[in-house]
Amino acid sequence: MEIKQAIITGFMGKLKDRFSEYHESKTPVEKIAAVAKVKGAKGVEIVYPYELQDLDRIKKTLKRYRLGVAAVNVNIKGEPEFVKGSSSVNSKKLRDKAIQFICEGMDVAAKLGADKVTCCPLSDGYDYLFQVDYQQAWRNMVSTFKEAARHRKDIFLFLEYKGSETRVNCYLDTAAKTLCMIRDINEPNLGITIDVGHSLMVGETVAESLCLAQSSGIPYYIHINDNNKKWDWDLIPATRNLWDYLEMLFYLKKFNYRGWVTSDMSPVRLDPIAAFERTIDTTEKMIKIVKRLDSKKLESMIREERTIETLTWLEEQVLR
Amino acid sequence: MEIKQAIITGFMGKLKDRFSEYHESKTPVEKIAAVAKVKGAKGVEIVYPYELQDLDRIKKTLKRYRLGVAAVNVNIKGEPEFVKGSSSVNSKKLRDKAIQFICEGMDVAAKLGADKVTCCPLSDGYDYLFQVDYQQAWRNMVSTFKEAARHRKDIFLFLEYKGSETRVNCYLDTAAKTLCMIRDINEPNLGITIDVGHSLMVGETVAESLCLAQSSGIPYYIHINDNNKKWDWDLIPATRNLWDYLEMLFYLKKFNYRGWVTSDMSPVRLDPIAAFERTIDTTEKMIKIVKRLDSKKLESMIREERTIETLTWLEEQVLR
Amino acid sequence: MEIKQAIITGFMGKLKDRFSEYHESKTPVEKIAAVAKVKGAKGVEIVYPYELQDLDRIKKTLKRYRLGVAAVNVNIKGEPEFVKGSSSVNSKKLRDKAIQFICEGMDVAAKLGADKVTCCPLSDGYDYLFQVDYQQAWRNMVSTFKEAARHRKDIFLFLEYKGSETRVNCYLDTAAKTLCMIRDINEPNLGITIDVGHSLMVGETVAESLCLAQSSGIPYYIHINDNNKKWDWDLIPATRNLWDYLEMLFYLKKFNYRGWVTSDMSPVRLDPIAAFERTIDTTEKMIKIVKRLDSKKLESMIREERTIETLTWLEEQVLR
Amino acid sequence: MEIKQAIITGFMGKLKDRFSEYHESKTPVEKIAAVAKVKGAKGVEIVYPYELQDLDRIKKTLKRYRLGVAAVNVNIKGEPEFVKGSSSVNSKKLRDKAIQFICEGMDVAAKLGADKVTCCPLSDGYDYLFQVDYQQAWRNMVSTFKEAARHRKDIFLFLEYKGSETRVNCYLDTAAKTLCMIRDINEPNLGITIDVGHSLMVGETVAESLCLAQSSGIPYYIHINDNNKKWDWDLIPATRNLWDYLEMLFYLKKFNYRGWVTSDMSPVRLDPIAAFERTIDTTEKMIKIVKRLDSKKLESMIREERTIETLTWLEEQVLR
Repeated sequence: MEIKQAIITGFMGKLKDRFSEYHESKTPVEKIAAVAKVKGAKGVEIVYPYELQDLDRIKKTLKRYRLGVAAVNVNIKGEPEFVKGSSSVNSKKLRDKAIQFICEGMDVAAKLGADKVTCCPLSDGYDYLFQVDYQQAWRNMVSTFKEAARHRKDIFLFLEYKGSETRVNCYLDTAAKTLCMIRDINEPNLGITIDVGHSLMVGETVAESLCLAQSSGIPYYIHINDNNKKWDWDLIPATRNLWDYLEMLFYLKKFNYRGWVTSDMSPVRLDPIAAFERTIDTTEKMIKIVKRLDSKKLESMIREERTIETLTWLEEQVLR
Repeated sequence: MEIKQAIITGFMGKLKDRFSEYHESKTPVEKIAAVAKVKGAKGVEIVYPYELQDLDRIKKTLKRYRLGVAAVNVNIKGEPEFVKGSSSVNSKKLRDKAIQFICEGMDVAAKLGADKVTCCPLSDGYDYLFQVDYQQAWRNMVSTFKEAARHRKDIFLFLEYKGSETRVNCYLDTAAKTLCMIRDINEPNLGITIDVGHSLMVGETVAESLCLAQSSGIPYYIHINDNNKKWDWDLIPATRNLWDYLEMLFYLKKFNYRGWVTSDMSPVRLDPIAAFERTIDTTEKMIKIVKRLDSKKLESMIREERTIETLTWLEEQVLR
Repeated sequence: MEIKQAIITGFMGKLKDRFSEYHESKTPVEKIAAVAKVKGAKGVEIVYPYELQDLDRIKKTLKRYRLGVAAVNVNIKGEPEFVKGSSSVNSKKLRDKAIQFICEGMDVAAKLGADKVTCCPLSDGYDYLFQVDYQQAWRNMVSTFKEAARHRKDIFLFLEYKGSETRVNCYLDTAAKTLCMIRDINEPNLGITIDVGHSLMVGETVAESLCLAQSSGIPYYIHINDNNKKWDWDLIPATRNLWDYLEMLFYLKKFNYRGWVTSDMSPVRLDPIAAFERTIDTTEKMIKIVKRLDSKKLESMIREERTIETLTWLEEQVLR
Repeated sequence: MEIKQAIITGFMGKLKDRFSEYHESKTPVEKIAAVAKVKGAKGVEIVYPYELQDLDRIKKTLKRYRLGVAAVNVNIKGEPEFVKGSSSVNSKKLRDKAIQFICEGMDVAAKLGADKVTCCPLSDGYDYLFQVDYQQAWRNMVSTFKEAARHRKDIFLFLEYKGSETRVNCYLDTAAKTLCMIRDINEPNLGITIDVGHSLMVGETVAESLCLAQSSGIPYYIHINDNNKKWDWDLIPATRNLWDYLEMLFYLKKFNYRGWVTSDMSPVRLDPIAAFERTIDTTEKMIKIVKRLDSKKLESMIREERTIETLTWLEEQVLR
């Protein structure tokens, strides 16, 4: 396992929810500069198109701060015409715009030296029963992502699932449904973005979803945060679900994951720099614990389902 | 039962969530004009201070459109310094500002001919464990609302509960906890605002919470909408939980409720005028059904727990 | 659409939960006789091995009451040695016993004139984090069901998913994960059992899961009941989630479903006969409503996302 | 803080759920003997009437093993006629039987040297909407518990809340509603039993509920276990929600709690002795951590809402 930690730049600027706004606006360059201040941050996930209008400047800024690019996050929900969906809608014109965004995002990713774009189609869903034709929406999504993925084989398209928000029900809600979609798309350069909080929120055990992706041979990419299992609060990791976080990292080690793990933590009422440092530090701490664990011993206890022994041993290894 | 339907004016303007914005901005006067276009709307709930800067103009506009005021909604979460709470915080200065808002809101309510303000302290809560001192926060809230309620006895202060949002945990999360707080405040002019969606979201049966308030002798005021029981989606009423809605209205009839029932429905991806008309029409429809029901028969079936008979009879009465 | 309604015989006997017992024990023959008393019941789902020890007698009894067999429900969780799982466990001996149960169940189904067995592997899961190896468990399940399915091609093996109970987490938790497993098993005679309550409980929209199965070309079979979306309460259908139930039936009509729809309703505190009659009657009522709906009109409103019109029209069509 | 750990004897015998049975039946004396084998167990919570038929023998057995009695658990749901409720029902005869059980339980508690009975009215609730009259049920419960509490002032009656199970909705669902009921009962010898899992399952923060009781001056008693926040799985404490457990213990220390903390953990698929030892050991471990924490420092960080510092410091104190 070789993990590099990145930060989603968007969380360094102004944040909002339905009722309030938090922190000051920042330009993309300022956001990158802010990421650079976070001890331990080695890269960014950056949003196309909104933060990548001036690509050269971004490239220079990243170089200056020696930050890599974990992924380009292609936003296909933010345009006013995308509020009722983009990848899933019946309008070919709108779907084409979403495809165009993804393709351009892939080109930009290549220029930035990233190997992937990640895309979370949050407005693709529904709020009311009897509102949409689920089969048609699925077909539309498959066709959108297929066309986008075929744009270039050297860049991966990662799909990020989430159960709700902004729609009451998002189509791509679970790890398993994302794998179903990836099989239906049937292109070689697809991956799945597992956001720890999204996974917890739909009732998954994060490590189990990771294993499902690993067994399917689908590459995965990790967003980290935490929540109360009810909503995507984007809290600092391991502050609510410590054991889930450790278990996920244990499997990343088992699968010898080499790549980015990216903070999708939202520091709404916290100092962003400090909150991201906490996110990175706590993750480093957990990685250290996981590396320290005797995998053979643990795996053999699991294999033989010696559960109480496992729990006792884990407590000894983890707690002071 | 004599129900007048009102609309929260805020939902007539620009709406937003974490990721998107919906509809155009409107001035308070324009919002009132929009409410006036909704067939069946007899009044507004309007936000102090943000929509009541020019009180005279608002009064005139309301008069012109013959709209009543169900309540003045005092917003004690919107100010930048309120993002970590206002009624519950340790800073007396901030609490005083919240008190001042409520008192001014009460004065404005009186001038508008309303009998109450309603206040939903959504930033009063916490996101992390070990973040706050729960006892101190409770004491602070009790003291804030007590001082505010004592400002004038002729206007009621209604407290609106909600489980989360914007905080992961809001202190005033359930009907029962609100009643606990109201008893601790111990002033005669307190009430409880029961938002159907908030109640569903924390796992309450709305009718049961209504009964709890009724039995406690605490006046209640109703916000209507619907959701999937997981989050406060502010959907059109009865589109997900038809029977819950009917049952609540059945008890409003039983208690001979005479007053406002106010749309807290958020038409993010819908035409606002049409969506509020749907909200009002579906509510009228349900009221008609409830009025048509033979209460004595229903109550006697309930008393004797003849559940299957009740379900059969209800289906006959309600479905075509 | 041509729907025949059946009843799971098990619910006609003694029922229990953690704390209480309900109703009297009945022999399998008595249970079938009880089903025959339910107006509208045309068949049974019956449990192998526990209710099919004396196959000839069961056959005769079914014939006598002119009841069909919707499915043989193969129970691979009830044996004492199955409490920690059967299809997923590392012990080949235990897995073989589960396979044997399913194969025998298939043979019995053929003899009873049924076209399928259905199997809900509820003890296959975990309670603690770090308790199991998720990948190994998945492989074990795939191998178990593959070997069972290959026993005979003329009988289908339907897998029924459920999020929890009896394990905190069951492996086969959602429709999408079941489809993933069915693809991994890769045999022609597999199907998916969609239990309305299981689907609601994991946050699915039932109609959407149905569409997913339909689009995948996987046959589906329906268990009906209702709940509060939190737990599998096996309530009478449409008593909590009326619109979800109607929408599912609307898609069954759209897909011209011809087959069994089976009551998985648990009459713990109700008279069983009356409760099943209510289940069948309310389902008949909903089917009648759905058949009455002008599908073309509804589909065109959905296609054009004229949501408010749809909601208005549905209310007119459905409510008195 | 001086905590003695007890075990609910019932969990030492045969356990069951809807689908399976676990472990062998044991007599009450055998169950006590089993508790005595658990290192660290100092007492029992024992069920009246079912485990206390032969009081003298139980007394002797407890004495022999030097086990105290944390509480007598009065079961008012287990009798066949109690399946639709006991404390809340309209039948005075049934309510009287519930009262009689509680009164006898109090007498038995006195004889056993315990200071309280605890009662969790799980069958008092409803499954369907329009099934019960919520006001009447509340009045019935208040009257039942009032009459019971008045039986003798030297023994406390603790009410234990739970959101569901066995009813879809139990009346006494949250800490706050229990406090409302206790105020309505208005007798001096009432207390609240806070079961960690019940609290988590209804979305409470356990420490916050504890604070609510403490501030209300109502005595509390603690049942320990853990779950996934969705259902009362009665898992070993701190295996899912470590921080919640620590925070609760931190407040017990702050309030200088002196009394019993009782295992309500269900070892369905585990060796009971080992599972209870794990429960006690992990609790001892957490108590040790909490005692080690510099309270002044932590409280001042909380008071000043220096959240990130708090999280950092806690991680240093708690994790290896």
